[in-house]
Amino acid sequence: MTDDADAELLRRRAAALAPSYQLFYDEPVHLVRGEGVWLYDADGKRYLDCYNNVPSVGHAHPRIVAALAEQTGLLNTHTRYLHQHVVELAERLAASLPGDLASCYFVCTGTEANDLAVQIARVVTGNHGVVVTERAYHGNSDLVGKLSTDSYPESERPDWLGVVEPPNTYRGPFRTPEPEVGARYAELVGDSLAELDARGHGVAAMLIDTSWDSNGVLIAPDGYVDRVASSVRAAGGLVIADEVQAGYCRLGRNFWGHANYDLVPDIVTIGKPMGAGHPVAAVVTTPEIAAQFAGRRNYFNTFGGNPVSAAVALTVLDVIADEQLLANSAATGALLGAGLAELASRHDVIGNVQGSGLFWGVDLVADRTTREPVSYADAKRLASALRNRGVLAGVTGRYTNVLKLRPPLVFHSEHVDLLLETLDAVLATFELRGGDDVRALGAEW
Amino acid sequence: MTDDADAELLRRRAAALAPSYQLFYDEPVHLVRGEGVWLYDADGKRYLDCYNNVPSVGHAHPRIVAALAEQTGLLNTHTRYLHQHVVELAERLAASLPGDLASCYFVCTGTEANDLAVQIARVVTGNHGVVVTERAYHGNSDLVGKLSTDSYPESERPDWLGVVEPPNTYRGPFRTPEPEVGARYAELVGDSLAELDARGHGVAAMLIDTSWDSNGVLIAPDGYVDRVASSVRAAGGLVIADEVQAGYCRLGRNFWGHANYDLVPDIVTIGKPMGAGHPVAAVVTTPEIAAQFAGRRNYFNTFGGNPVSAAVALTVLDVIADEQLLANSAATGALLGAGLAELASRHDVIGNVQGSGLFWGVDLVADRTTREPVSYADAKRLASALRNRGVLAGVTGRYTNVLKLRPPLVFHSEHVDLLLETLDAVLATFELRGGDDVRALGAEW
Repeated sequence: MTDDADAELLRRRAAALAPSYQLFYDEPVHLVRGEGVWLYDADGKRYLDCYNNVPSVGHAHPRIVAALAEQTGLLNTHTRYLHQHVVELAERLAASLPGDLASCYFVCTGTEANDLAVQIARVVTGNHGVVVTERAYHGNSDLVGKLSTDSYPESERPDWLGVVEPPNTYRGPFRTPEPEVGARYAELVGDSLAELDARGHGVAAMLIDTSWDSNGVLIAPDGYVDRVASSVRAAGGLVIADEVQAGYCRLGRNFWGHANYDLVPDIVTIGKPMGAGHPVAAVVTTPEIAAQFAGRRNYFNTFGGNPVSAAVALTVLDVIADEQLLANSAATGALLGAGLAELASRHDVIGNVQGSGLFWGVDLVADRTTREPVSYADAKRLASALRNRGVLAGVTGRYTNVLKLRPPLVFHSEHVDLLLETLDAVLATFELRGGDDVRALGAEW
Repeated sequence: MTDDADAELLRRRAAALAPSYQLFYDEPVHLVRGEGVWLYDADGKRYLDCYNNVPSVGHAHPRIVAALAEQTGLLNTHTRYLHQHVVELAERLAASLPGDLASCYFVCTGTEANDLAVQIARVVTGNHGVVVTERAYHGNSDLVGKLSTDSYPESERPDWLGVVEPPNTYRGPFRTPEPEVGARYAELVGDSLAELDARGHGVAAMLIDTSWDSNGVLIAPDGYVDRVASSVRAAGGLVIADEVQAGYCRLGRNFWGHANYDLVPDIVTIGKPMGAGHPVAAVVTTPEIAAQFAGRRNYFNTFGGNPVSAAVALTVLDVIADEQLLANSAATGALLGAGLAELASRHDVIGNVQGSGLFWGVDLVADRTTREPVSYADAKRLASALRNRGVLAGVTGRYTNVLKLRPPLVFHSEHVDLLLETLDAVLATFELRGGDDVRALGAEW
């Protein structure tokens, strides 16, 4: 905290908010203003935002402000009256998606999207089991909270949950350049499916986040995604692409993460970046699946797809197109990846650099040979050192040792330069101290 | 539909949105603008909004537009950075609530609020069972969708769910002026608790919506709520007041519905009116309960409590205070109730008028002696006749025969007059035709 006012606000916050609330950094940042990739604290100090993907088109984008204000000034109702915006939004999402993914539901959060997707999968397949990767994060409802294995004690995992190793070719059980790593990780999914079947649940769905965000930001090895999708479908399940992290140009090559793997999902879920901070999210599936669900369940979402949320979501799509943010994610992302690789050549603490587009994980190691992850305390100290020099980044991964870089999509080469210079300077004097801090359930640090 | 453009929009809508989406009215209303209690369709026709509680302070309130635009132009992040607004909002909610209800969680929808509340209750009590009233509606996630018994086939009700008769003293098994109706309805809850215990689930919580919205808008008989709360607590469960409908001045006498019954809940959930259309919702509980939950589960909500949502929610509270909307709900609501009672004295189709504040149910009957409800088709025709004369109302209740009147809180005496005149004129020529239309799962009509 910077001063007495912040101390007082922290005291009031601790009294009024539930203790589940966590703050980033031991000395929290008190932000009051944002613009593009920049954030400003209450003392006027400027930070380069290298963490936040929710303000996808940049903080306080004037077109988002205008769209929100204009439509809120006109009308904000729900989808039980006819309105143009929600239809146009659904059409544009469908047009961006492969195959027959053309039937949309609008909700407010990625949690609601994934919860609905799994409900649909269970109703349509008649199966109950769900497969996720270890330490996946898919949301916080009762149902998808259980799919987020880091959010609760391992002893309480439900019987219907299959948890598989993420395809981490640097740190997992099968590592590049071993042969056939994609097939070997996919075999683990096959084993999990067989287990769910043996337990009598079968498989309703596997959720695949093609950025493997909470697994440390991964690129799956060749042959992994297609094999996994085939085996899930062969077992009678649906493939849900959780695009809350990977979608909306994040990974650079394509608008959607699953497109990087030529995957045609059965259900796509969309969240965080869709409204540039406004709570709007979606589920898209095929008309056949949607029709089967409609006969068995009611579904209505009061706020989902309201004219204001739809206007904002349409404006986000417009800005992405007009400002060519997909091309920027690819080009600026390539600069960032190359720069991080160069830093890795000079700093032993960087064990691996993984990611694409504007989403990178820097796997930090205490020992390059053993790949022993740095301690939780050290990872936190590194992020805090960056923060002290005006760069906001995160820490993620199964061992909370991966520096997470996931800036707004309006990140450009000059921002890459500043991030790399700052990280270089911090690493030049950074000393590992170890430590055995225990991380709270689900904490990113 | 009014013209070819609407027909085309309907066709596109059917192709792009999932078939779960329903539209009000056989000829849907295509709204494009709102102001206060007025809505306008694409042809410029004006409607008096007697249905929508979400735009609590009136459609397109300029202070809401300004708050949204101002804060979105400044900063929209999440609760992992320190910010003033979310703290102030939590403090103001806590100050409005009784007892030790002072520990807040912010989410985006009533669904997320109720889902979290039940998760908390299960973790804290160690029990699994949940009690709701028949045809309650508490949301649409996997968990709270199961508490919404009209949303799925009765054969699929989970074993842990207790479903009790709502305290409908006009239409239920115990009717005014029979003696001790409150105690007799409460006994049904006791029976349900015993059954959940016998099935090995115990009780984690009972959810009480003190407007009994989807049960037809009820006033509970004396002695009901306190007996129910006592027996739930005696069985080891928590009392969750679902204030998504009843809260925010809706019932006239108090800001919160539960205050009408001198109930001090263990958990309060808040939704729809809180953001005047913006997706913001909350859970408030005691510090003790919140602390027990925090040790067992991670909880974070990306959008919940962001500075924009908090700014809007604070402005809603300001407008309610500055425009004295609680007093208005009481005074205008009393006029509306008296007017409806007067209509009942002249129109036999009105079997009962029930409600308070700006929330009224008009129970429509085919026969006043037997209290046989009007058919679904007739109820829909009545609502459509009102719509054709420029008044938007809903249809609800277990038999979908209750006309639902629940206007924005800025409804004044001149609006009451117009509503009553229109309803009077429609009823003057309205003929019951019966019919056996089957209502879709969860449809309000």
